[in-house]
Amino acid sequence: MFQSLVNLYKIKFDSTLISNLLKYRAFSNNDKMMFSFSIIKKSAHSRARLGRIATPHGTINTPAFIFCATNAAIKGVPIDHVKASGSQIILSNTYHLMLQPGSDIIKAAGGLHKFLGWDGPMFTDSGGFQIFSLGHGGVEAEIKSSQQLNGKKALIKLTENGACFRSHIDGRKVTLTPELSIETQVALGADIIVSLDECTPYHVNKLYTATSMEKSKRWATRSLNTFMKIGDGRQALLAVVQGGVYPDLRQESAQFANNNDFHGFAIGGSLGKTKSEMHKVVDVTTQMLDKTRYVHLLGIGGIDDIFHGVECGIDTFDCVTPTRIARHGAAIVKTRENPGSSKPYICLENSRYSRGFSPISVECECYTCQNFSRAYIHHLIKAREIVFGTLISIHNIMMMNRLMTDIRNGLANDTLDTVRQEWGS
Amino acid sequence: MFQSLVNLYKIKFDSTLISNLLKYRAFSNNDKMMFSFSIIKKSAHSRARLGRIATPHGTINTPAFIFCATNAAIKGVPIDHVKASGSQIILSNTYHLMLQPGSDIIKAAGGLHKFLGWDGPMFTDSGGFQIFSLGHGGVEAEIKSSQQLNGKKALIKLTENGACFRSHIDGRKVTLTPELSIETQVALGADIIVSLDECTPYHVNKLYTATSMEKSKRWATRSLNTFMKIGDGRQALLAVVQGGVYPDLRQESAQFANNNDFHGFAIGGSLGKTKSEMHKVVDVTTQMLDKTRYVHLLGIGGIDDIFHGVECGIDTFDCVTPTRIARHGAAIVKTRENPGSSKPYICLENSRYSRGFSPISVECECYTCQNFSRAYIHHLIKAREIVFGTLISIHNIMMMNRLMTDIRNGLANDTLDTVRQEWGS
Repeated sequence: MFQSLVNLYKIKFDSTLISNLLKYRAFSNNDKMMFSFSIIKKSAHSRARLGRIATPHGTINTPAFIFCATNAAIKGVPIDHVKASGSQIILSNTYHLMLQPGSDIIKAAGGLHKFLGWDGPMFTDSGGFQIFSLGHGGVEAEIKSSQQLNGKKALIKLTENGACFRSHIDGRKVTLTPELSIETQVALGADIIVSLDECTPYHVNKLYTATSMEKSKRWATRSLNTFMKIGDGRQALLAVVQGGVYPDLRQESAQFANNNDFHGFAIGGSLGKTKSEMHKVVDVTTQMLDKTRYVHLLGIGGIDDIFHGVECGIDTFDCVTPTRIARHGAAIVKTRENPGSSKPYICLENSRYSRGFSPISVECECYTCQNFSRAYIHHLIKAREIVFGTLISIHNIMMMNRLMTDIRNGLANDTLDTVRQEWGS
Repeated sequence: MFQSLVNLYKIKFDSTLISNLLKYRAFSNNDKMMFSFSIIKKSAHSRARLGRIATPHGTINTPAFIFCATNAAIKGVPIDHVKASGSQIILSNTYHLMLQPGSDIIKAAGGLHKFLGWDGPMFTDSGGFQIFSLGHGGVEAEIKSSQQLNGKKALIKLTENGACFRSHIDGRKVTLTPELSIETQVALGADIIVSLDECTPYHVNKLYTATSMEKSKRWATRSLNTFMKIGDGRQALLAVVQGGVYPDLRQESAQFANNNDFHGFAIGGSLGKTKSEMHKVVDVTTQMLDKTRYVHLLGIGGIDDIFHGVECGIDTFDCVTPTRIARHGAAIVKTRENPGSSKPYICLENSRYSRGFSPISVECECYTCQNFSRAYIHHLIKAREIVFGTLISIHNIMMMNRLMTDIRNGLANDTLDTVRQEWGS
């Protein structure tokens, strides 16, 4: 509560502030009804912190993992299983939902939470990542697969106003502006939303990265203004920190974000080509950000990357990996359950599992591990029964939640190094 | 219990009977441990009957619908949702499971029930239908899709001994004999199993049908002998009644089945080209069968066909339809929820449902209807999120169970005609 007030009073006094303050105040008697971020404990060994995010749809204990429900669905998994696997928060995609079914329909349905049957905290991204992927390609399979326009580039024009592209659904032209992104996200009604940015790719030069970052700043200002004007005070808005692999540009972007009244930050854009470069960018950027506010790392979900991010002070992560690798037959396990391998997962299509009559993990409490053997899932893969993807996804979701619980316990008990070893990271 | 004893003592005294009797007796103190079929009420208006099948894995109230878990999985649906939708019994496929993963693996896993996480009654078919489909084609999409051997016919030779074919998994030659079918089904451990038959197709002449039916009789005898020799007394064996559309051949096949100690009957083979022809075959054949024993109608699941079958005295039905049409976006509804259409389902891809904010059925208690709108499922179809198939399947399974509950109530209360009207049949 205290933290949220700190954030609240940082909001600049502009023409719309008074009405927004009133809106915030209208909810101030009920902590559940508004966003707040509080740090419960800071690590003595790193910048890691144990925290809590309160939202109108419940609390998120941080560090936490956010599961991707890109099209308002966790791929292949009924949402009750996502809940039962201990998930705290899920993320949907503004770009995808504005095209299909359209935010008007979701609003008319009672908002995104009701539409997809999730009453916990939700996050929507801004569509910035899709501007990148539409223009530059080379993105997650989830997005690639629905982006084919008979070889035509989907992005038509990137201007100061916004990104004009062709819908991957019906080919119609759409211009995504910061205003439209926020209007859409307000209509969708997620608890945490993100200002529109251009997600700068890796292979452009520093000048492009700088120009793009400057544009993202202007877009963030427009996003914030729209948010102040039309928001109902129940959502939190994050600024995206850009600047590619260049510390000076990251500094400029972070400075801008610190100086404006965003509820928190999302680290985006190119994080480099290699893992070590990525870790460096995260390390440098997190140091530049206001330590009292919430920090999300966009699109990163490798177990080692999560440990590294946590130690840099990242509070939440999102990634499609847990369900995507599940659909390719890979189930997350701790090192001790994968002897002879350094990988944090097992590939259940491998014939070595045809007689694996124990569950994926004997320690796991997920629906899949409580009911089925490795041999059964191996069989489902061989028999092309796609429910295997559902069953492994349920397990992987539970394991990511287990990982984050272990990390939180590690932070609480000062045993993060032990936790890290257990997870082979 | 009385009925099971009647069935029991019909078993012919041959060399293996004594040991089998002992096996049956070993379970006689525990009704749950053996098969029995009892008729609770006979309709005054038709041959319909309300019944109860006891199996080692629980009781089935009949008439009942059996859901197809061909490859030891209900397509696209985690088994907990199959249970939660009120399902009483599921069916797996001997042909499919003997090839993948192999009955040895399922036996080593603790049997089919444990393997797929279902502790209720189970049914396995004999593989006879697959002999038909491998040799003649023209079968359910489920089987077609996994039967491509680069244009080569999968069935190599059909002899007195059995059916020799190439595995659709790895191309190896396999000969399915009555003995192998029963050995496989005993190893799988379903509660109700079926003797091997040749499922005679429609487009062959009467001579072929007669010859095939005679062979099926000999195969049924071999099946029964194997069953008596290796069975543990906990499974029930059905004879398949063949004879195509020819009443005299059906009579001969039924006579054979009546005269042998099968626990019940499964009506198979060609049931004709049209619905009315099929109804006639079912009508004629059911009249020929011993009225005290259990009767299953193989592969039929149309709602009107079920009403017709019930009135002929059919106790159970199986069909892939509920989950197959779900994967094509069709959700089963009662007539009053589908105004302007005579169909018992709605096609949720239709744009008329884009703003359908009510559930598929306001009367339905399934997970899908309790949590999601028609608009949401329409959106999932449009966004190619395959979980739509899962959600509609869950609903369709509940609706088939609802249908059968309504039919049972109709029989109990002598209101079957009203029930039939409600279901638009």
